[in-house]
Amino acid sequence: ARPRVGYFYSGKSANQLLIEHIQSLMVKDYKSRPVVVQEKTSVYDAICTMFLEDVGTLYVVKGQNRLSGVLSRKDLLKAAMGNHELTAVPVSVVMTRMPNIVTCKLDDTLVHAAGQMMRHQVDSVPVVRIAGDEEWEIIGRITKTTIARAFVELGENISI
Amino acid sequence: ARPRVGYFYSGKSANQLLIEHIQSLMVKDYKSRPVVVQEKTSVYDAICTMFLEDVGTLYVVKGQNRLSGVLSRKDLLKAAMGNHELTAVPVSVVMTRMPNIVTCKLDDTLVHAAGQMMRHQVDSVPVVRIAGDEEWEIIGRITKTTIARAFVELGENISI
Repeated sequence: ARPRVGYFYSGKSANQLLIEHIQSLMVKDYKSRPVVVQEKTSVYDAICTMFLEDVGTLYVVKGQNRLSGVLSRKDLLKAAMGNHELTAVPVSVVMTRMPNIVTCKLDDTLVHAAGQMMRHQVDSVPVVRIAGDEEWEIIGRITKTTIARAFVELGENISI
Repeated sequence: ARPRVGYFYSGKSANQLLIEHIQSLMVKDYKSRPVVVQEKTSVYDAICTMFLEDVGTLYVVKGQNRLSGVLSRKDLLKAAMGNHELTAVPVSVVMTRMPNIVTCKLDDTLVHAAGQMMRHQVDSVPVVRIAGDEEWEIIGRITKTTIARAFVELGENISI
Protein backbone atom coordinates (compact mmCIF):
# COMPACT_ATOMS: atom_id res chain seq x y z
CA ALA A 1 0.00 0.00 0.00
CA ARG A 2 1.26 3.47 -0.83
CA PRO A 3 1.36 5.93 2.00
CA ARG A 4 -1.23 8.68 1.84
CA VAL A 5 -0.26 12.31 2.05
CA GLY A 6 0.41 13.15 5.66
CA TYR A 7 1.42 9.60 6.54
CA PHE A 8 4.67 7.89 5.97
CA TYR A 9 5.48 4.25 6.10
CA SER A 10 7.97 3.15 8.60
CA GLY A 11 7.24 0.11 10.69
CA LYS A 12 9.64 1.82 13.03
CA SER A 13 8.94 4.23 15.83
CA ALA A 14 10.45 7.72 15.88
CA ASN A 15 12.42 6.37 18.81
CA GLN A 16 14.07 3.69 16.69
CA LEU A 17 14.75 6.11 13.83
CA LEU A 18 16.56 8.43 16.20
CA ILE A 19 18.68 5.66 17.73
CA GLU A 20 19.52 4.30 14.28
CA HIS A 21 20.52 7.71 13.00
CA ILE A 22 22.80 8.40 15.95
CA GLN A 23 24.32 4.93 15.65
CA SER A 24 25.10 5.57 11.98
CA LEU A 25 27.65 8.27 12.94
CA MET A 26 31.12 6.72 12.71
CA VAL A 27 34.48 7.51 14.28
CA LYS A 28 36.15 7.60 10.84
CA ASP A 29 33.94 10.52 9.78
CA TYR A 30 34.43 12.60 12.93
CA LYS A 31 38.02 11.98 14.05
CA SER A 32 40.39 14.95 14.22
CA ARG A 33 44.16 15.20 14.03
CA PRO A 34 46.03 13.99 17.15
CA VAL A 35 48.71 16.27 18.61
CA VAL A 36 51.74 14.15 19.51
CA VAL A 37 55.03 14.57 21.37
CA GLN A 38 57.98 12.20 21.75
CA GLU A 39 58.76 10.21 24.94
CA LYS A 40 61.88 12.30 25.59
CA THR A 41 60.06 15.67 25.24
CA SER A 42 60.30 17.65 28.50
CA VAL A 43 57.23 18.35 30.61
CA TYR A 44 57.90 22.06 30.04
CA ASP A 45 57.87 21.69 26.24
CA ALA A 46 54.75 19.50 26.44
CA ILE A 47 52.90 22.22 28.38
CA CYS A 48 53.96 24.78 25.74
CA THR A 49 52.72 22.45 22.98
CA MET A 50 49.38 22.05 24.76
CA PHE A 51 48.96 25.84 24.83
CA LEU A 52 50.15 26.45 21.28
CA GLU A 53 47.97 23.70 19.82
CA ASP A 54 45.09 24.57 22.18
CA VAL A 55 44.23 20.95 23.03
CA GLY A 56 43.37 19.22 26.31
CA THR A 57 45.26 15.98 25.67
CA LEU A 58 48.65 15.18 24.13
CA TYR A 59 49.60 11.74 22.86
CA VAL A 60 53.10 10.43 23.41
CA VAL A 61 54.62 8.37 20.60
CA LYS A 62 57.82 6.49 19.85
CA GLY A 63 59.10 5.45 16.42
CA GLN A 64 56.60 5.68 13.56
CA ASN A 65 53.62 7.18 15.42
CA ARG A 66 53.43 4.18 17.77
CA LEU A 67 51.18 5.18 20.70
CA SER A 68 53.14 5.03 23.93
CA GLY A 69 51.22 7.20 26.38
CA VAL A 70 48.69 9.96 27.08
CA LEU A 71 49.16 13.32 28.83
CA SER A 72 46.08 15.05 30.21
CA ARG A 73 45.98 18.66 31.46
CA LYS A 74 45.65 17.12 34.90
CA ASP A 75 48.88 15.08 34.49
CA LEU A 76 50.78 18.22 33.47
CA LEU A 77 49.20 20.40 36.16
CA LYS A 78 50.19 17.83 38.79
CA ALA A 79 53.79 17.81 37.47
CA ALA A 80 53.89 21.63 37.33
CA MET A 81 52.79 21.86 40.98
CA GLY A 82 55.39 19.38 42.18
CA ASN A 83 58.30 21.85 42.07
CA HIS A 84 60.17 19.64 39.62
CA GLU A 85 62.62 21.14 37.16
CA LEU A 86 60.09 20.99 34.33
CA THR A 87 62.65 21.34 31.55
CA ALA A 88 64.56 18.29 32.83
CA VAL A 89 61.72 15.80 33.36
CA PRO A 90 60.71 13.81 30.24
CA VAL A 91 56.98 13.25 29.65
CA SER A 92 57.50 9.47 29.82
CA VAL A 93 57.80 9.89 33.61
CA VAL A 94 54.38 11.52 34.11
CA MET A 95 52.27 10.07 31.28
CA THR A 96 49.65 7.31 31.46
CA ARG A 97 51.17 4.39 29.62
CA MET A 98 49.84 1.85 27.08
CA PRO A 99 48.12 -0.57 27.45
CA ASN A 100 46.31 1.31 30.24
CA ILE A 101 44.72 3.66 27.71
CA VAL A 102 41.19 3.54 26.34
CA THR A 103 41.32 3.60 22.53
CA CYS A 104 38.88 3.31 19.63
CA LYS A 105 39.04 2.17 16.01
CA LEU A 106 38.04 3.77 12.69
CA ASP A 107 34.95 1.58 12.29
CA ASP A 108 33.60 2.12 15.82
CA THR A 109 30.45 4.20 16.19
CA LEU A 110 30.75 7.70 17.62
CA VAL A 111 28.32 6.67 20.37
CA HIS A 112 30.63 3.82 21.35
CA ALA A 113 33.61 6.20 21.59
CA ALA A 114 31.52 8.67 23.63
CA GLY A 115 30.37 5.84 25.92
CA GLN A 116 33.98 4.81 26.49
CA MET A 117 34.87 8.37 27.53
CA MET A 118 31.95 8.40 29.99
CA ARG A 119 32.68 4.96 31.47
CA HIS A 120 36.41 5.60 31.87
CA GLN A 121 36.08 9.29 32.79
CA VAL A 122 38.52 10.58 30.19
CA ASP A 123 38.26 13.68 27.97
CA SER A 124 39.32 12.01 24.73
CA VAL A 125 40.15 8.68 23.10
CA PRO A 126 42.89 8.13 20.53
CA VAL A 127 41.90 6.40 17.27
CA VAL A 128 44.39 3.58 16.64
CA ARG A 129 45.06 0.71 14.28
CA ILE A 130 47.07 -2.39 15.11
CA ALA A 131 50.62 -2.04 13.78
CA GLY A 132 52.21 -5.22 15.08
CA ASP A 133 52.53 -7.23 18.25
CA GLU A 134 51.54 -4.93 21.13
CA GLU A 135 51.93 -1.95 18.80
CA TRP A 136 49.27 0.59 17.86
CA GLU A 137 49.61 3.41 15.33
CA ILE A 138 47.77 6.58 16.34
CA ILE A 139 45.73 7.96 13.44
CA GLY A 140 43.28 10.38 15.10
CA ARG A 141 41.38 11.40 18.18
CA ILE A 142 37.79 11.75 19.36
CA THR A 143 37.21 14.31 22.14
CA LYS A 144 34.25 15.58 24.14
CA THR A 145 34.39 18.60 21.81
CA THR A 146 33.86 16.23 18.85
CA ILE A 147 30.77 14.83 20.59
CA ALA A 148 29.40 18.25 21.55
CA ARG A 149 29.82 19.41 17.93
CA ALA A 150 27.96 16.34 16.61
CA PHE A 151 25.19 17.00 19.15
CA VAL A 152 24.83 20.62 18.01
CA GLU A 153 24.74 19.52 14.36
CA LEU A 154 22.00 17.00 15.18
CA GLY A 155 19.91 19.56 17.05
CA GLU A 156 20.30 22.45 14.66
CA ASN A 157 20.29 20.85 11.21
CA ILE A 158 20.21 17.23 10.18
CA SER A 159 19.64 14.99 7.21
CA ILE A 160 18.66 11.35 7.70
CA ALA B 1 -8.44 8.90 9.60
CA ARG B 2 -6.98 6.32 11.92
CA PRO B 3 -3.54 5.08 11.07
CA ARG B 4 -3.34 1.50 9.85
CA VAL B 5 -1.03 -1.01 11.45
CA GLY B 6 2.49 -0.44 10.15
CA TYR B 7 1.91 3.24 9.52
CA PHE B 8 1.93 6.10 11.91
CA TYR B 9 0.57 9.54 11.45
CA SER B 10 3.00 12.33 11.67
CA GLY B 11 2.87 15.02 9.04
CA LYS B 12 6.48 15.44 10.09
CA SER B 13 9.59 13.85 8.67
CA ALA B 14 11.88 11.69 10.78
CA ASN B 15 14.27 14.58 10.41
CA GLN B 16 11.92 17.02 12.13
CA LEU B 17 11.08 14.52 14.89
CA LEU B 18 14.75 14.13 15.68
CA ILE B 19 15.42 17.88 15.78
CA GLU B 20 12.34 18.45 17.93
CA HIS B 21 13.34 15.74 20.35
CA ILE B 22 16.84 17.10 20.78
CA GLN B 23 15.51 20.62 21.16
CA SER B 24 13.18 19.43 23.94
CA LEU B 25 16.18 18.71 26.20
CA MET B 26 16.50 21.61 28.64
CA VAL B 27 19.35 23.05 30.69
CA LYS B 28 17.27 22.82 33.88
CA ASP B 29 17.04 19.01 33.54
CA TYR B 30 20.74 18.44 32.83
CA LYS B 31 22.63 21.01 34.92
CA SER B 32 25.05 19.75 37.54
CA ARG B 33 26.41 21.31 40.73
CA PRO B 34 28.95 24.11 40.18
CA VAL B 35 32.20 23.97 42.16
CA VAL B 36 32.97 27.44 43.50
CA VAL B 37 35.85 29.22 45.24
CA GLN B 38 36.08 32.72 46.73
CA GLU B 39 37.92 35.65 45.08
CA LYS B 40 40.60 35.63 47.79
CA THR B 41 41.28 31.85 47.47
CA SER B 42 44.93 31.25 46.49
CA VAL B 43 45.84 29.78 43.12
CA TYR B 44 47.41 26.87 45.01
CA ASP B 45 44.22 26.10 46.92
CA ALA B 46 42.18 26.44 43.71
CA ILE B 47 44.38 23.84 41.97
CA CYS B 48 43.91 21.49 44.94
CA THR B 49 40.13 22.04 44.78
CA MET B 50 40.14 21.26 41.04
CA PHE B 51 41.90 17.94 41.76
CA LEU B 52 39.79 16.99 44.78
CA GLU B 53 36.50 17.79 43.03
CA ASP B 54 37.75 16.37 39.72
CA VAL B 55 36.37 19.19 37.56
CA GLY B 56 37.81 21.12 34.63
CA THR B 57 36.43 24.53 35.57
CA LEU B 58 36.04 26.40 38.86
CA TYR B 59 33.69 29.34 39.32
CA VAL B 60 34.76 32.28 41.44
CA VAL B 61 32.07 33.93 43.58
CA LYS B 62 31.71 36.81 45.98
CA GLY B 63 28.96 37.33 48.57
CA GLN B 64 25.89 35.12 48.16
CA ASN B 65 27.02 32.95 45.21
CA ARG B 66 27.35 35.99 42.96
CA LEU B 67 29.35 34.91 39.90
CA SER B 68 32.54 36.92 39.67
CA GLY B 69 34.87 34.88 37.44
CA VAL B 70 35.87 31.58 35.84
CA LEU B 71 39.05 29.53 36.23
CA SER B 72 39.86 26.99 33.53
CA ARG B 73 42.58 24.31 33.80
CA LYS B 74 44.45 26.42 31.28
CA ASP B 75 44.31 29.55 33.49
CA LEU B 76 45.70 27.58 36.44
CA LEU B 77 48.33 25.77 34.35
CA LYS B 78 49.54 29.13 33.02
CA ALA B 79 49.78 30.52 36.58
CA ALA B 80 51.57 27.37 37.82
CA MET B 81 54.18 27.69 35.05
CA GLY B 82 54.87 31.35 35.79
CA ASN B 83 57.03 30.66 38.87
CA HIS B 84 54.68 32.72 41.03
CA GLU B 85 54.37 31.95 44.72
CA LEU B 86 51.11 30.04 44.16
CA THR B 87 49.97 30.21 47.78
CA ALA B 88 50.21 34.02 47.74
CA VAL B 89 48.40 34.84 44.49
CA PRO B 90 44.58 35.12 44.79
CA VAL B 91 42.50 33.61 41.98
CA SER B 92 40.98 37.03 41.24
CA VAL B 93 44.31 37.92 39.57
CA VAL B 94 44.26 35.06 37.05
CA MET B 95 40.54 34.40 36.47
CA THR B 96 38.40 35.46 33.51
CA ARG B 97 36.06 38.09 34.88
CA MET B 98 32.34 38.83 34.45
CA PRO B 99 30.81 40.09 32.21
CA ASN B 100 33.30 38.45 29.81
CA ILE B 101 31.85 35.01 30.57
CA VAL B 102 29.43 33.02 28.44
CA THR B 103 26.47 31.95 30.61
CA CYS B 104 23.15 30.19 30.12
CA LYS B 105 19.78 30.15 31.87
CA LEU B 106 17.55 27.41 33.31
CA ASP B 107 15.05 27.60 30.44
CA ASP B 108 17.63 27.52 27.63
CA THR B 109 17.79 24.36 25.52
CA LEU B 110 20.74 22.01 26.00
CA VAL B 111 21.55 22.46 22.29
CA HIS B 112 21.79 26.23 22.79
CA ALA B 113 24.20 25.79 25.71
CA ALA B 114 26.28 23.31 23.66
CA GLY B 115 26.30 25.72 20.71
CA GLN B 116 27.56 28.51 22.99
CA MET B 117 30.44 26.29 24.13
CA MET B 118 31.36 25.54 20.50
CA ARG B 119 31.12 29.16 19.32
CA HIS B 120 33.10 30.57 22.26
CA GLN B 121 35.51 27.63 22.55
CA VAL B 122 34.95 27.00 26.25
CA ASP B 123 34.59 23.69 28.11
CA SER B 124 31.58 24.65 30.22
CA VAL B 125 28.98 27.34 30.82
CA PRO B 126 27.64 28.40 34.21
CA VAL B 127 23.86 28.42 34.67
CA VAL B 128 22.89 31.77 36.20
CA ARG B 129 19.86 33.81 37.17
CA ILE B 130 19.75 37.58 37.47
CA ALA B 131 20.13 38.64 41.09
CA GLY B 132 20.24 42.40 40.75
CA ASP B 133 21.89 45.14 38.74
CA GLU B 134 24.94 43.57 37.06
CA GLU B 135 24.68 40.63 39.48
CA TRP B 136 24.20 36.97 38.60
CA GLU B 137 23.66 34.10 41.02
CA ILE B 138 25.33 30.86 39.89
CA ILE B 139 22.97 27.89 40.23
CA GLY B 140 24.56 25.19 38.08
CA ARG B 141 26.83 24.30 35.19
CA ILE B 142 26.64 22.58 31.81
CA THR B 143 29.89 20.99 30.58
CA LYS B 144 31.02 19.05 27.52
CA THR B 145 30.70 15.98 29.74
CA THR B 146 27.00 16.83 30.23
CA ILE B 147 26.58 16.98 26.46
CA ALA B 148 28.52 13.76 25.81
CA ARG B 149 26.38 11.98 28.42
CA ALA B 150 23.15 13.24 26.77
CA PHE B 151 24.47 12.06 23.39
CA VAL B 152 25.21 8.57 24.75
CA GLU B 153 21.73 8.40 26.34
CA LEU B 154 20.15 9.39 23.01
CA GLY B 155 22.13 6.81 21.06
CA GLU B 156 21.78 3.91 23.47
CA ASN B 157 18.28 4.21 24.88
CA ILE B 158 15.65 6.87 24.39
CA SER B 159 12.00 7.58 24.96
CA ILE B 160 10.23 10.26 22.93
